Amino acid sequence: MLNLLLITASARRERSLSRDLAARFMSGVEKTGLRVQIVERDLAATPPPLLSESHIVTFFTPDAQRSDDQRALLGPSDMFIDELAGADLIVIATPMYNYGMPASLKAWVDQVVRIGRTFSFDLARGDYPLEPMLAGKTLVVLTASGEFGFAAGGQNAEKDHLVPHLHTLAPYLGAKTVYHVGVEYQEFGDRRFEASLAAAQYEATALGQRLARAPCVRSR
Amino acid sequence: MLNLLLITASARRERSLSRDLAARFMSGVEKTGLRVQIVERDLAATPPPLLSESHIVTFFTPDAQRSDDQRALLGPSDMFIDELAGADLIVIATPMYNYGMPASLKAWVDQVVRIGRTFSFDLARGDYPLEPMLAGKTLVVLTASGEFGFAAGGQNAEKDHLVPHLHTLAPYLGAKTVYHVGVEYQEFGDRRFEASLAAAQYEATALGQRLARAPCVRSR
Repeated sequence: MLNLLLITASARRERSLSRDLAARFMSGVEKTGLRVQIVERDLAATPPPLLSESHIVTFFTPDAQRSDDQRALLGPSDMFIDELAGADLIVIATPMYNYGMPASLKAWVDQVVRIGRTFSFDLARGDYPLEPMLAGKTLVVLTASGEFGFAAGGQNAEKDHLVPHLHTLAPYLGAKTVYHVGVEYQEFGDRRFEASLAAAQYEATALGQRLARAPCVRSR
Repeated sequence: MLNLLLITASARRERSLSRDLAARFMSGVEKTGLRVQIVERDLAATPPPLLSESHIVTFFTPDAQRSDDQRALLGPSDMFIDELAGADLIVIATPMYNYGMPASLKAWVDQVVRIGRTFSFDLARGDYPLEPMLAGKTLVVLTASGEFGFAAGGQNAEKDHLVPHLHTLAPYLGAKTVYHVGVEYQEFGDRRFEASLAAAQYEATALGQRLARAPCVRSR
């Protein structure tokens, strides 16, 4: 049994390339014929609430001392974290908007990375007091960008504030291993784009098939 | 006459350190006694709309062909861009949330970086078809972070997806020069934090005073 959480974030529906890569990945998973439990969380369809001061206060209030209003405020965060905690494989399919993640995906991150739920905090640990509480998950990042050359060593590598950011966040999502498949050149619509799209579609399908079968991914 | 746009993004109000740095910067500006026109845009108090598919379609529709609904949808984007276009000095005061910008600030960026208003697009330009349309502005970034060592060469430099991201975006905001003052160590609450805060407060005030007087900043 594989528990898969699919996070989608593109504002586009039919014409979204990151959603297309997600569909290819899922078709690869399905090809294995193995049992998979899928939860999809579409952040464009239902955007998470933006962090407010009340959220921050509530996150830092011990549960026993929380008011009913505070508990209600935690609803979306609790739901997102439960979905995350139940997953073996997390797939984040997202466009690059202005060199970073869409605001809806950042809003999800800010509801999910939460003291006492996804990380613990202890100053006795010295310079690194934060410690992730989730573990054993695998993260797949599927991206679409208009420009190109964002991979390490590429001519726009220093402008990629999406994939490196998700790498930094991965431990807080319980993931040690991160896979990335991306389509580039979208705004050029030329042969380089067609080649990039075909390669990414192929890779996404193959990765879905491979990871669904991997014993280290299937925890149960 | 100096036209200053102050963008604030912290979910916290009284206890916000980035808002404190913004206040110090403004006090430095005021110390000069020079005439300053200030527009403040508080993204926590009034969060910008998240990008929807309708926004994207509308951004790419020529103005003459836009429906009344589409024009109404552009309201916040038009307002943010007008505020930006009218500024000589842009001050972005923001906390680092989970190693990046708050979702509210990213939502502002995604409403502001817009084809035909803040950048033009022409495939005849080759591999870099985007060109910023605004120019001559100065960007000041004031940040607060719980951890430390995010500056170049620091032990957490590769985890900073906030300041480098704003550097990448600066040309699209019309800014060539970027200044940064940040307070670190917030979550430690120790002497390092106190020293970092005192230094940042001093620097923010001094920078406000210096830039308000700088002829290259005061465009009119």
